[in-house]
Amino acid sequence: MLQESYPKSAKPIDPIQDDEEEEYDEFDYAYNEPGSLPGTLIIDEDATVPNIFLIDYHADNVTGMQLLHPEDCTPYLESESVSWVDVQGLGSEDVLQRIGQVFKIHPLILEDVVNIPQRPKVEEYDDRLLIITHMVTPKNDGIGFISEQVSFVLGKNYLLTVQEEPEHDTFEVVRERIHRNKGSIRNQRADYLSYCLIDTIIDGFFPVLEDYGERLEDLQDAVLANPSSQSIDAILRIRRELLLLRRAIWPQREAIKLLIRDDSTLLSDSVRVYFSDCYDHVVQVIDMLETYRELASSLMDVYLSSISMRTNEVMQVLTVISVIFMPLTFIAGVYGMNFNPQVSPWNMPELEWSYGYVTCWALMIVTAGTMIIYFWRKGWLGKTRIAKTGRS
Amino acid sequence: MLQESYPKSAKPIDPIQDDEEEEYDEFDYAYNEPGSLPGTLIIDEDATVPNIFLIDYHADNVTGMQLLHPEDCTPYLESESVSWVDVQGLGSEDVLQRIGQVFKIHPLILEDVVNIPQRPKVEEYDDRLLIITHMVTPKNDGIGFISEQVSFVLGKNYLLTVQEEPEHDTFEVVRERIHRNKGSIRNQRADYLSYCLIDTIIDGFFPVLEDYGERLEDLQDAVLANPSSQSIDAILRIRRELLLLRRAIWPQREAIKLLIRDDSTLLSDSVRVYFSDCYDHVVQVIDMLETYRELASSLMDVYLSSISMRTNEVMQVLTVISVIFMPLTFIAGVYGMNFNPQVSPWNMPELEWSYGYVTCWALMIVTAGTMIIYFWRKGWLGKTRIAKTGRS
Amino acid sequence: MLQESYPKSAKPIDPIQDDEEEEYDEFDYAYNEPGSLPGTLIIDEDATVPNIFLIDYHADNVTGMQLLHPEDCTPYLESESVSWVDVQGLGSEDVLQRIGQVFKIHPLILEDVVNIPQRPKVEEYDDRLLIITHMVTPKNDGIGFISEQVSFVLGKNYLLTVQEEPEHDTFEVVRERIHRNKGSIRNQRADYLSYCLIDTIIDGFFPVLEDYGERLEDLQDAVLANPSSQSIDAILRIRRELLLLRRAIWPQREAIKLLIRDDSTLLSDSVRVYFSDCYDHVVQVIDMLETYRELASSLMDVYLSSISMRTNEVMQVLTVISVIFMPLTFIAGVYGMNFNPQVSPWNMPELEWSYGYVTCWALMIVTAGTMIIYFWRKGWLGKTRIAKTGRS
Amino acid sequence: MLQESYPKSAKPIDPIQDDEEEEYDEFDYAYNEPGSLPGTLIIDEDATVPNIFLIDYHADNVTGMQLLHPEDCTPYLESESVSWVDVQGLGSEDVLQRIGQVFKIHPLILEDVVNIPQRPKVEEYDDRLLIITHMVTPKNDGIGFISEQVSFVLGKNYLLTVQEEPEHDTFEVVRERIHRNKGSIRNQRADYLSYCLIDTIIDGFFPVLEDYGERLEDLQDAVLANPSSQSIDAILRIRRELLLLRRAIWPQREAIKLLIRDDSTLLSDSVRVYFSDCYDHVVQVIDMLETYRELASSLMDVYLSSISMRTNEVMQVLTVISVIFMPLTFIAGVYGMNFNPQVSPWNMPELEWSYGYVTCWALMIVTAGTMIIYFWRKGWLGKTRIAKTGRS
Amino acid sequence: MLQESYPKSAKPIDPIQDDEEEEYDEFDYAYNEPGSLPGTLIIDEDATVPNIFLIDYHADNVTGMQLLHPEDCTPYLESESVSWVDVQGLGSEDVLQRIGQVFKIHPLILEDVVNIPQRPKVEEYDDRLLIITHMVTPKNDGIGFISEQVSFVLGKNYLLTVQEEPEHDTFEVVRERIHRNKGSIRNQRADYLSYCLIDTIIDGFFPVLEDYGERLEDLQDAVLANPSSQSIDAILRIRRELLLLRRAIWPQREAIKLLIRDDSTLLSDSVRVYFSDCYDHVVQVIDMLETYRELASSLMDVYLSSISMRTNEVMQVLTVISVIFMPLTFIAGVYGMNFNPQVSPWNMPELEWSYGYVTCWALMIVTAGTMIIYFWRKGWLGKTRIAKTGRS
Repeated sequence: MLQESYPKSAKPIDPIQDDEEEEYDEFDYAYNEPGSLPGTLIIDEDATVPNIFLIDYHADNVTGMQLLHPEDCTPYLESESVSWVDVQGLGSEDVLQRIGQVFKIHPLILEDVVNIPQRPKVEEYDDRLLIITHMVTPKNDGIGFISEQVSFVLGKNYLLTVQEEPEHDTFEVVRERIHRNKGSIRNQRADYLSYCLIDTIIDGFFPVLEDYGERLEDLQDAVLANPSSQSIDAILRIRRELLLLRRAIWPQREAIKLLIRDDSTLLSDSVRVYFSDCYDHVVQVIDMLETYRELASSLMDVYLSSISMRTNEVMQVLTVISVIFMPLTFIAGVYGMNFNPQVSPWNMPELEWSYGYVTCWALMIVTAGTMIIYFWRKGWLGKTRIAKTGRS
Repeated sequence: MLQESYPKSAKPIDPIQDDEEEEYDEFDYAYNEPGSLPGTLIIDEDATVPNIFLIDYHADNVTGMQLLHPEDCTPYLESESVSWVDVQGLGSEDVLQRIGQVFKIHPLILEDVVNIPQRPKVEEYDDRLLIITHMVTPKNDGIGFISEQVSFVLGKNYLLTVQEEPEHDTFEVVRERIHRNKGSIRNQRADYLSYCLIDTIIDGFFPVLEDYGERLEDLQDAVLANPSSQSIDAILRIRRELLLLRRAIWPQREAIKLLIRDDSTLLSDSVRVYFSDCYDHVVQVIDMLETYRELASSLMDVYLSSISMRTNEVMQVLTVISVIFMPLTFIAGVYGMNFNPQVSPWNMPELEWSYGYVTCWALMIVTAGTMIIYFWRKGWLGKTRIAKTGRS
Repeated sequence: MLQESYPKSAKPIDPIQDDEEEEYDEFDYAYNEPGSLPGTLIIDEDATVPNIFLIDYHADNVTGMQLLHPEDCTPYLESESVSWVDVQGLGSEDVLQRIGQVFKIHPLILEDVVNIPQRPKVEEYDDRLLIITHMVTPKNDGIGFISEQVSFVLGKNYLLTVQEEPEHDTFEVVRERIHRNKGSIRNQRADYLSYCLIDTIIDGFFPVLEDYGERLEDLQDAVLANPSSQSIDAILRIRRELLLLRRAIWPQREAIKLLIRDDSTLLSDSVRVYFSDCYDHVVQVIDMLETYRELASSLMDVYLSSISMRTNEVMQVLTVISVIFMPLTFIAGVYGMNFNPQVSPWNMPELEWSYGYVTCWALMIVTAGTMIIYFWRKGWLGKTRIAKTGRS
Repeated sequence: MLQESYPKSAKPIDPIQDDEEEEYDEFDYAYNEPGSLPGTLIIDEDATVPNIFLIDYHADNVTGMQLLHPEDCTPYLESESVSWVDVQGLGSEDVLQRIGQVFKIHPLILEDVVNIPQRPKVEEYDDRLLIITHMVTPKNDGIGFISEQVSFVLGKNYLLTVQEEPEHDTFEVVRERIHRNKGSIRNQRADYLSYCLIDTIIDGFFPVLEDYGERLEDLQDAVLANPSSQSIDAILRIRRELLLLRRAIWPQREAIKLLIRDDSTLLSDSVRVYFSDCYDHVVQVIDMLETYRELASSLMDVYLSSISMRTNEVMQVLTVISVIFMPLTFIAGVYGMNFNPQVSPWNMPELEWSYGYVTCWALMIVTAGTMIIYFWRKGWLGKTRIAKTGRS
Repeated sequence: MLQESYPKSAKPIDPIQDDEEEEYDEFDYAYNEPGSLPGTLIIDEDATVPNIFLIDYHADNVTGMQLLHPEDCTPYLESESVSWVDVQGLGSEDVLQRIGQVFKIHPLILEDVVNIPQRPKVEEYDDRLLIITHMVTPKNDGIGFISEQVSFVLGKNYLLTVQEEPEHDTFEVVRERIHRNKGSIRNQRADYLSYCLIDTIIDGFFPVLEDYGERLEDLQDAVLANPSSQSIDAILRIRRELLLLRRAIWPQREAIKLLIRDDSTLLSDSVRVYFSDCYDHVVQVIDMLETYRELASSLMDVYLSSISMRTNEVMQVLTVISVIFMPLTFIAGVYGMNFNPQVSPWNMPELEWSYGYVTCWALMIVTAGTMIIYFWRKGWLGKTRIAKTGRS
């Protein structure tokens, strides 16, 4: 029944990013027009109109519904049961301002929630905890990822989550756990719920990162076998994406560290233990990420030396062929000269020998053979072949 | 009415910088002649004569005017209303010294305000807070930015701001907010005013930085498609400009951090909350900046490998053509030899064959064909084309 | 007798890694499906079914046996003697969960023990100390190493160790010391036992690292003598493996530091002294590792300059041969022209000279000689030879 | 009158450094023969014999003279007025030892003052403050700088300064200020005097550094336009000099920080404010220095890519000319063959055509034209020209 | 008399290192077989049998002798006079264990003293201070250095020093000072003696390092003038040796810092002042070392660009010669064609001209001249010469 209360957004979503056009925009944070009033909200006109979903639960009961007006939350927030209000979409200033009033959010904090993207952080303000996180999900075509800001406002009995858009939501499994009463979630407070969701977000980094392991391996093979302009494009792209991931995950590490050390009364000690586990996961994500960054950055050197190697091989072929044929051509040129043998016996007497032509060929074969043996010994002929075999 | 009290400076402003001549000067801080007296002011003779603008406001009223003498400020400074004195231009030692006396500024601090540029910093001295910031605005032609020092001296009821010159002023929006009573600015003290102005300055970094995203992207495409001397000039220029931005923004981060942590009585707790928000913005600016610096620094490697790739292609063309034509030329040379066929049947009998010439051509075509097939297999002919296609 | 209680695992072990396929997987930490319940265990279906070995000892007596059920441990855990329970293999969720119950391990900690690999760490929880370490052993073929997670749960009178698999076990020497009562181990508590085992693990890094010294030296010689595609493969491989070692050893340094500084009652002061010694060893391992990493990373530069050097030599050969033969071929070409000497005395009179041919040869020899002397002076002929000698 | 009491040293000074010989020596600190007694003084036999100058002043009076014996200072040191003893030259162990006795300097401190160069530092010992600084002055020829150690021993009423040699002294302006009673210096104590001198030393770094801005800019232009062996010499030289500056200025930053934070009674609070200003200047010097170091270090990459670019251009010229002339030479070679047209109509019938020669030229022109058009499209001909234009 | 009590070791010492074989071994620390008992001593069978030398002194008297048994020390250790026991050689486990018993050294500490090399460190244990240092002495052939571990065990009235071998001992000067009563050493305690010896060890780094300055300068000149395979070997060797020095000196800095800050009663305050001076020396050594490391690491770039420069020059020579002779050879080829002039006036009429041959030569000279002028303008001919001149 609840499943049906999460309808697909009617509005067709534009493709998230047109790769060629917007790739460097991904590095820009949101900011207000210099000089605008503090707390000004920026509404992207293409953004989805916010849908508000409420799940209200305690140990014995769970209610799930979509709300039409933010004000409908008020009775739930005051009850003792845990209320999870999930807002999906940032397309209406009016609705978002009303949400701000219902949850009594400071305008500067509402600004951080709405004007995306912001840097992940944790802030406590008036008995409310603001947690800004970035969630990553693999792209549909499997190359790269989509990054989305998810903001948490944690109060005593409620948790407000705000997502950029209805798609790419990894919270479904948690909704399941609440509805089917799996694990202890229904017996815990809103702080445990916030842990579950943040844990989901952190664990979502692992599959995205693992993917980069494979891509780097393939790319390394490609660069060694056949360095091309495409390789360098791919290297740059991976480095850029890993840089993006880095910017998303590092501040989350600081933020979760702050959550553990914080003395806020909104988090119970038992939930802090869970957040410690979550912190370990962030550290592992960062470990993997930095490893991949190091590997990616060494690929540029590999590329460069791979090209140099190749240029060297080309040069060897050219040199071998030149060194063999230049003396031969010279010999042929000599016997093409028109000195008159009739004038004196010193003038090209070879031309009149019976075995002149044969001798000439013999000379040429000996010259070429000497050169070939020289290169053979120098290893240029052999090496070229070995190098080729080594690759195919 | 007030709008008119900000006349354009009559004196024509020289072009800020002649790019070719002065670009490395931008990295130099101001300093006094070694051994000169502490507190010596350096007046650039081309600098604008200081204009002094006063805005004095409280919740119900606002007065704005241009003052002829620094001493005219005195009555306003002593009143309870907030007085914002904005000095534009650093072209007169006399006026600046008198401002120093009116505001009772320590000579070392006046030196920092007047001898530009100084490193951004915060210093408290005798119930007065000195804040030195750097403001950046995009250049008119959209490439690069102009950096200007803005100094703040914050007292109990007043704020003194000193700008290098009347142009490139981003404070207009704040003046508007005061005059039109937008937001809460008229109900706040001078510390909130200082926040508004500094926030404007910090937010001014975002559009300048975003611009670098686009320039880096264009440059990367250019470097991959066609590496030239111009590319390397452009890379060096972007790196130099990002270095300049870095030097402007990093010390401001430290300065604002100090403002938040400081226990000065000049800043109220509620304004400290606003400065925290401002600090988040500085951190986001730094994040973007460091990202762009990393991308810019990898461009040099891209450039180098792009040239190597290109040299490799040129070498392949040369090698292919040499390997094909050298044997052919040799064959032609052989049959251009003048061994006398009359002397013996061993001497170039081919020349007398009926189909000698045809056979010779056949030999040459087979040789060339073999070579072409060899290169085709090796991928040199194909790759050259693929590489070209990949680019156009 | 005890020896026989450690049977070889019946199940044939798959080769640990198929180099080409899985090498980048080594960098990935284990993680749960995002959104899964905290404490979910991941069981690899190829993993060995856990074997449980118990050694229970005090100063006068020692008992060693293989247990069929985890619950058989209970009486030993409660006795005053030291009980070492060694679990080898992670192939059965049921057995592992029952071990968790017998030792009263928190589900999050059991998750860290079972879902391998995790980042090394130390955590105290409910009077139990969890220590996660990585043990390395050289591969059978002597190239590279096998890394295995070993988890320690230290209680008052017992130590639980969990290994990934029965093979590659370096604990045999410690079992010996217990059984043969060598040193003071039988008179000490479980904390000393944990020290002995961890010390064994840390010392196991030394021989693995020493091996890299030799490999780097061989590789450097190979790169200088004959840079090939294989060299770069080998450099990348060594760098990847050193990166893996680094990721294994650095967190262990932090972990052991924590053990020394910790105020846990589970470690006595005298054992802390031993752990300080162990910490010194970790620092020495890290010192060696970072040195090798620096040497490995400079190898890429060596490779690149080695290729450049070689290309330079090839170019010199080509240039020398071209510069010598091009003028000669030109001279031969001139005297192959067919200007008619009969028409005028200006038309190639040389052809009719008695010593024309001889003069022509003299001219060619002088030309070639001049070139050779020029190159000799320039050092190209000599240098090529010196370079060759320098290598062989 | 006092001016005359500073006679030029009679002894002719050797040129400071013979560039080729001693440049790497600049990086070496002074040290005693291993095992020598602590406090052993090393006297360079070429060093100037120390001249001792005394300026003794209070608000109303100033006395300046050259002293013959260190012991002559004693009465001045005990008076209430401020005594500045300036020792120039380190050429006599006897005089230096006697100075040590007069000022009661610990032998280890005297060692640091005499055995130059030492690392800049601050040390307090027995109510005396030792400050070791490095002073830089531009070389006469404007390229590079001269570095000289200046040591300060600050007591209650006196300041002892020790300079390496009489030349390159930037203290003249301070002497002027004392004699002409400019600023407040005559009303202040010895601590203010030490500030004035150290400030002079720090500010002396600015003009030296600014010079590097210009040199780097010129060098960058030179490297881009025409990379040569001289360029790399110049890059290495600038990097070495900036490294030297870095070693001089960084420890001074630490030293001045220590002075500000120190709780020594030798410095009054008002002078500490001045030292804070001085600290800001050091930080600005370091900022500029690190910027120039970053720019200098990127020049090596620029050089390398500039050469690669140039090699690429050379290769293109060679390839264009080869690709055009090789086919032409082949065609000419074909029609130089001696197949006998009389034997059969298949043997080179072209030779007997009326328009054979003309056709042959047509063929050659078409071939060459095709090649030229091919290169034109590929951009090789055009680009070469653009590249040239872009430079000149 | 005492001099004779230091006989040369009878056993001939093997050459320290066979460069080709063991160079990477230098980076390996000593370690015990994994799993061996803590405190196991490793005795190298080639090591010298320990000689034990005792110097016992107080202000008025000094006794020096060689001891046969470690137990002979006991009476001296208990007396009030300072006893310096110097053990040279690590070749007998029995003797070393007995020394351990005489001095009551903890087995883990004895392990650090005997199993060389260990990382330098300071440890206090049971009223005894263990200091492990590395001493470097220049090699006999002047290239490189020999590193030797020297361990200090400092007690109340005695100092035990343990050296690897009798050679390469820099302690002779200190023995002299004791015997000849130079300086204050005879009036001081054992802590001052330890300072004297450690100071000797630290100062021993200076001459070794200075040597690298000269080697780097020579190498830079060599690399710029004539980059060869030997250069890269030399660069790698210097970098490896500087890395070794770095590993020896950095931990000593930490160790001496610890000595100064330590609150051990074994060191008096006045000796701590001396150790501060010693710390300054370590910092200066590190400063010099890091400078040389930076210079050495830039040499690889210099090498690479030097080769590129050279390749570029080779390419220019090849291109110039090709561009000049290819057109000439083509022209000669044209007039070597055999078109029959008899058939028609269009067929090579030039051959029949009176001045055909002369015209042909004129054409060739004009062509070659044009090319030469082109290259002259382009600067290739000139530059090649300048480059050469610049070097010689």
